[in-house]
Amino acid sequence: MTDEASAFVPGHVTGFFSVERTDDPTTTGSRGGGLALTDGVRVTVRPAEETTVVLDDVGVEIGAVDRVLDALGAQATVIGETDLPIGAGFGVSGAMALGTALAGNAVFDRRLLRDELVTIAHGAEVQAGTGLGDVVAQAAGGITLRLEPGGPMENRLDAIPARSRVEYVTFGELDTATVISGDTDRLTLAGEEALSTVVAEPTVSEFMYAARKFAREANLLTAEVRDVITDVSAANGEASMAMLGETVFALGDGLSSAGYEPQVCQVDPAGATLVDDRDVDGEITGRSADGSE
Amino acid sequence: MTDEASAFVPGHVTGFFSVERTDDPTTTGSRGGGLALTDGVRVTVRPAEETTVVLDDVGVEIGAVDRVLDALGAQATVIGETDLPIGAGFGVSGAMALGTALAGNAVFDRRLLRDELVTIAHGAEVQAGTGLGDVVAQAAGGITLRLEPGGPMENRLDAIPARSRVEYVTFGELDTATVISGDTDRLTLAGEEALSTVVAEPTVSEFMYAARKFAREANLLTAEVRDVITDVSAANGEASMAMLGETVFALGDGLSSAGYEPQVCQVDPAGATLVDDRDVDGEITGRSADGSE
Repeated sequence: MTDEASAFVPGHVTGFFSVERTDDPTTTGSRGGGLALTDGVRVTVRPAEETTVVLDDVGVEIGAVDRVLDALGAQATVIGETDLPIGAGFGVSGAMALGTALAGNAVFDRRLLRDELVTIAHGAEVQAGTGLGDVVAQAAGGITLRLEPGGPMENRLDAIPARSRVEYVTFGELDTATVISGDTDRLTLAGEEALSTVVAEPTVSEFMYAARKFAREANLLTAEVRDVITDVSAANGEASMAMLGETVFALGDGLSSAGYEPQVCQVDPAGATLVDDRDVDGEITGRSADGSE
Repeated sequence: MTDEASAFVPGHVTGFFSVERTDDPTTTGSRGGGLALTDGVRVTVRPAEETTVVLDDVGVEIGAVDRVLDALGAQATVIGETDLPIGAGFGVSGAMALGTALAGNAVFDRRLLRDELVTIAHGAEVQAGTGLGDVVAQAAGGITLRLEPGGPMENRLDAIPARSRVEYVTFGELDTATVISGDTDRLTLAGEEALSTVVAEPTVSEFMYAARKFAREANLLTAEVRDVITDVSAANGEASMAMLGETVFALGDGLSSAGYEPQVCQVDPAGATLVDDRDVDGEITGRSADGSE
């Protein structure tokens, strides 16, 4: 057993989604589409007598992380570090769960396959009620289309073969659990239409168009988010709302061209990975924002 | 239509494999396991009146590339640049095919999904007889286990959730087409046993053990390769032979500790990606060898 292990998990903004519930967490999930981001969460796991979870130096309760540690049969100190806003639609809870699974497997020498770990993290997030599709997309990286819901043994993913700079601004939190546990029929209908549109025309521009249409039809736009998206469109940019947070994300320099001062990152092609500090000279806390790898 | 587009495709060393043939190139392929490498091929595609293919400034004929361009209905100048040895077991032909598919889709605005492009490149490589499993592993990145053969719509991939520094030395070429078109019963039996071993114990150490056993049982070791692997083992390192080339690859500093002067790279977690030069300040010709992304 090593002393600790770390994983980097990209952030993930969902542009559109449907809710697909079954009796089994591994087949429950969402269809939809989203962007994995080079801004993400670094998760470090250390064996401990009693589990504690810390996110950006603050003690937190994250149900999905506890469930992952239960599945691994382990107690640990889990330390998350991120520049992402929390509770604002970037999949931080999914990143914590998946990072705990990957780093926990390494530090406790559990010898599980990658998709077993992703399944554990996906199931934990579904059971905790904090997400439906972030984990599998964060594991895959890129601009993922979730064609069939569920964990990696059950689902079907494809992707838009593209990269992009991504800008984002956040105004506050939305409670994922409240939205996805409510009446989701209208949302799911809009999400499935958006997915069909993008599968027929898998470009980033079509993705953004479908995401804007989804946000409107699913009645999720707040006034502030709508105003910012309108400003970006007026400056000939492409923006939409991150599901689920009071967050606007844009391609290229969409937000800065419209006069905002956004955070800047890139689509992360890699997905979640262990951080192998033994072989690295410099610091790894994520991937560089300018995409120069 | 843009003027040109580029993709980076990681190199891929297969440690063990089986040959699984059907009448359909999308279900034909190999089971097995291998490492995607940060040393890879940058492929640039430019529309042209007549197709020409250049690899490291030399005009070449690569059947899989011609077939990919046929599938895209396009004529192009395809320019490959790589530091990898050619014909030595690093999947350069697969990288050229997959890079042509990804960059060709972008430059000719074909609007295909990622897995459609991977399917085209995989089928092209199978039909050209130059590979069976590199393309799908190069698309995925990481330490891929190919549990079921074929293109991405048909196969089943998983992975060892680990990273590593990788060293390699090359002594010469082996002709993949000759080996995989011959009698492969013994090789396939050894490859399926190796895969079972690694699935039961998915660690990099077990991977290397299974790869060495496979190389011996499939009768593919050359004298020089066997000697180098023995030297690395004597220095407490882990090495095996790249399928199919007269190449030895080792984890960590296995080769340098044994007194060799190897090339050094890392397991590439990302898999094949478009290179988005518009948003990049520095040069992208691959990923840095020290893993600092």
